[in-house]
Amino acid sequence: MAQLEVIDPVTCCTPVVAAPLDEEQAAGTAKMFKALGDPIRLRLLSMIASATGDGEVCVCDLTGPFDLSAPTISYHLKILREANLVRSERRGTWVYYRLRRDNLSRLSGLLAVPSLEELAVAEA
Amino acid sequence: MAQLEVIDPVTCCTPVVAAPLDEEQAAGTAKMFKALGDPIRLRLLSMIASATGDGEVCVCDLTGPFDLSAPTISYHLKILREANLVRSERRGTWVYYRLRRDNLSRLSGLLAVPSLEELAVAEA
Repeated sequence: MAQLEVIDPVTCCTPVVAAPLDEEQAAGTAKMFKALGDPIRLRLLSMIASATGDGEVCVCDLTGPFDLSAPTISYHLKILREANLVRSERRGTWVYYRLRRDNLSRLSGLLAVPSLEELAVAEA
Repeated sequence: MAQLEVIDPVTCCTPVVAAPLDEEQAAGTAKMFKALGDPIRLRLLSMIASATGDGEVCVCDLTGPFDLSAPTISYHLKILREANLVRSERRGTWVYYRLRRDNLSRLSGLLAVPSLEELAVAEA
């Protein structure tokens, strides 16, 4: 389904080093970073991201490592979903989560900056 | 000075797809993402990141595009600095900011995930 994701290419794809972000670009992207700005959500995302097999994780497997209630875990997963960082599907009793790889890659690209060593080579 | 930056390699350098983050890794990284999770700060960072010349920006050049007071801009810059995303230096009247490229690159690497197309090629 990944090819059906609709993402504003302006919001996510230009590295921050290329040009200053305008207000609209910044608002869309800030929401994603804000969702990542919590240790619990970052751990949940990394658990979903590092899932083997078909890349899907049952919510029933996400609560174990945390000393938190199921509703609290669900609240954090909702924030990740609303920020378009994961997608979810309910099947029977459980909800299953998988990474929105395209959006993660776009955030990664946005933060990609050449190192000083690379800049020195480029300027030489 | 970039080569003198001390960064915990465990906190920042392993992609989230490689393995679930532990508590300590997640806490350190979440602070950086939280700092990025605000449209004003994201725009300030992109203005600093896209600075030409020696890569340094005077705070006096950062307030113009915003309808915000100088203290509010300074507050957001302080959060970026405390999250180790920019460094600052006071010279005379003004404070000058530059990007912490190494830390931005590490966050970028953390979010780097292969696309489904790349995964399909890898599995083929």
